[in-house]
Amino acid sequence: MENKIIYLDNNATTRVDDKVLEAMLPYFCEQYGNPSSMYTFAQNPAHAIKEARGKLKDFFNANNEKEILFTSCGSESANTAIKGVLNMNKNKRHIITTKVEHPCVLNVYKSLEKQGYKVDYINVNSNGELDLEQLKEAVNDDTALVSVMYANNETGVIFPIEKIVDIVKSKNSETKIYVDAVQAAGKINIDVQELGVDMLGVSGHKFHAPKGVGVLYVNSKTVITPLIIGGHQERGLRAGTENVPYIVGIGKAAELAADNLKYEATEIKRLRDKLEAGILKRVFNARLNTGVSNRVPNTTNIGFEYIEGELILLHLGDYGICASSGSACTSGSLEPSHVLRAMNVPFTSIHGSIRMSLSKYTTEDEIDYVIEKFPPIIDKLTRISPYQDELDALKKIKV
Amino acid sequence: MENKIIYLDNNATTRVDDKVLEAMLPYFCEQYGNPSSMYTFAQNPAHAIKEARGKLKDFFNANNEKEILFTSCGSESANTAIKGVLNMNKNKRHIITTKVEHPCVLNVYKSLEKQGYKVDYINVNSNGELDLEQLKEAVNDDTALVSVMYANNETGVIFPIEKIVDIVKSKNSETKIYVDAVQAAGKINIDVQELGVDMLGVSGHKFHAPKGVGVLYVNSKTVITPLIIGGHQERGLRAGTENVPYIVGIGKAAELAADNLKYEATEIKRLRDKLEAGILKRVFNARLNTGVSNRVPNTTNIGFEYIEGELILLHLGDYGICASSGSACTSGSLEPSHVLRAMNVPFTSIHGSIRMSLSKYTTEDEIDYVIEKFPPIIDKLTRISPYQDELDALKKIKV
Repeated sequence: MENKIIYLDNNATTRVDDKVLEAMLPYFCEQYGNPSSMYTFAQNPAHAIKEARGKLKDFFNANNEKEILFTSCGSESANTAIKGVLNMNKNKRHIITTKVEHPCVLNVYKSLEKQGYKVDYINVNSNGELDLEQLKEAVNDDTALVSVMYANNETGVIFPIEKIVDIVKSKNSETKIYVDAVQAAGKINIDVQELGVDMLGVSGHKFHAPKGVGVLYVNSKTVITPLIIGGHQERGLRAGTENVPYIVGIGKAAELAADNLKYEATEIKRLRDKLEAGILKRVFNARLNTGVSNRVPNTTNIGFEYIEGELILLHLGDYGICASSGSACTSGSLEPSHVLRAMNVPFTSIHGSIRMSLSKYTTEDEIDYVIEKFPPIIDKLTRISPYQDELDALKKIKV
Repeated sequence: MENKIIYLDNNATTRVDDKVLEAMLPYFCEQYGNPSSMYTFAQNPAHAIKEARGKLKDFFNANNEKEILFTSCGSESANTAIKGVLNMNKNKRHIITTKVEHPCVLNVYKSLEKQGYKVDYINVNSNGELDLEQLKEAVNDDTALVSVMYANNETGVIFPIEKIVDIVKSKNSETKIYVDAVQAAGKINIDVQELGVDMLGVSGHKFHAPKGVGVLYVNSKTVITPLIIGGHQERGLRAGTENVPYIVGIGKAAELAADNLKYEATEIKRLRDKLEAGILKRVFNARLNTGVSNRVPNTTNIGFEYIEGELILLHLGDYGICASSGSACTSGSLEPSHVLRAMNVPFTSIHGSIRMSLSKYTTEDEIDYVIEKFPPIIDKLTRISPYQDELDALKKIKV
């Protein structure tokens, strides 16, 4: 394992699957025609987009290929959905979202607040589960949009989307629902018809497609304005010459992800659980930030009491282990995670919380190696912690 | 040449250069870290972006790397620049653009008109040259933005940007100038400091980078709001995990394009001129839509009087020759080109106008082949034209 990278940050981004790259390659230097051109040479790229759209339709179990829009990233999907649906309902000025959305989505709402929208942020409990009572109370006649994530990027906690949709629609059937499914795609099955959502966005690079391609599902009853105005591409909802290679790539990635869901739910979950249990058993000041069963199978988030997360990451880095203390988008910030704060994770462990996220490329050897490396790192950092008295007290309880 | 593709539609899109693909490849399956992550594994992708930004800075002769934003396409560059700068100047409601902008850019202005902006569209003469007097008269104290293309996608005509900037800024020094340089990049030198522009956008796939990546230059004195709100990427001006492979690719493509400018100005121009002269000499009803010397070296636009452009394209297609009758974004539309209409190209040839655009991959053999194939195609279509009397009269004049 020496000099090897142990990549346990698959919620930040993933390795492109070789089969995805292979599927994309012909569209760079050979089948490079503009899909909008009329000649035969451009028919293959145009057909490849159509095929990819069909694969995404299947991946989401959408009703119609027209409900699938290709975008350039998860952020573009979110911006398009959120602003696009609000533009169609300008008289309604109330939005509901959650306290634990991805920072990128939260920033969209911060900007909408400045434009006069009222935004309610729903709480989660200490396990990271959404307060459905508070959600129910928040929905009113003026609610244009409810925006919730499917799975949390830091904890992996899955929100009960079907139930959320029922609650919202039973109080206001005209309220539109956007689901940020960036961290769900490839980890659990996504069925937009079963969920009953109006819009749902994903990002390719979280499930082994490249960075720079996303998908937005918009059901046929939901009308949005385009974010990028220009050509007729994507039925006028997203201008710009289509990124044929990446669209083909995300189509292939979706197909592979669907095939991999069983492995995700069994083997990846087994490795994640082994990692979690291994660390919790060997490290007295380790504390699982949430252990609910309704989590995506690849994610764990563990707090190490009275020590600094950034220091843990640095030491893990010495062994080639890649993990994170929050979302990649907020890396480098010394603020503790807004997700863990919303969960009221005690201050003693919030600063020392580490997220590890596995993928189909994670091996048992890697997990064993990480379990072996954790205790000496934490032991070393615990010994230099300024909270020796508290640590002693904790040790007495735990041992 | 049989069964071969003769690709003369490089203004629609280009083949990715093998060296560009080669530069991108390591960032799919090997160096796949998220550039925002803190560990060593992510430093290489972060460094690769920095390097690419430097290459684009050099390509544009920008003053500072911070003036370079990576986007997902030319349309996103245009939308970001236009809406971004107007958002910072909400009290000013007047915009000036030209009648011959790319349809994608024109659509942005159509949408802004619906939001209450007043948009003036400046004319061109029969050669496709901008009416600078009309431009000068149009600028007033309320003019927030002047938006002009650098080179026209259909005719290749280059607008005198430096002169335009002088005219605009001398009447209103606060007016911002956006230049759509999508068709200039890789064909002529772009020097943003010499031009004195505030913002300038390009699209990678027009100069041998892939479809799905663009660049927006914003000079350090110009403040814009982001179009895609979310993470801190691109200094908060463009959220979304960076498309590392394509950013590396467009960096490489810019470097190669700069190296190729001399070849473009000499050899590609020679082949374009040979193609133009060859067809005009052999086809009595061919008419150059503009022959001004101030054109990008790769583009020609020829009208064939009294016959249908779509039929010409179909017949060219039988020989594997890819050309177009307008922008790819408007392919399939039966409306004659808005650019040729603005130039007052006579109705007798506007419907039979064909754009051919060369690249560094175009060979002399291909040009000879196309020159050989054109006369019999046009002859055949001329014989079935309903305008036989007019054609006879034309033949008498020409021969």
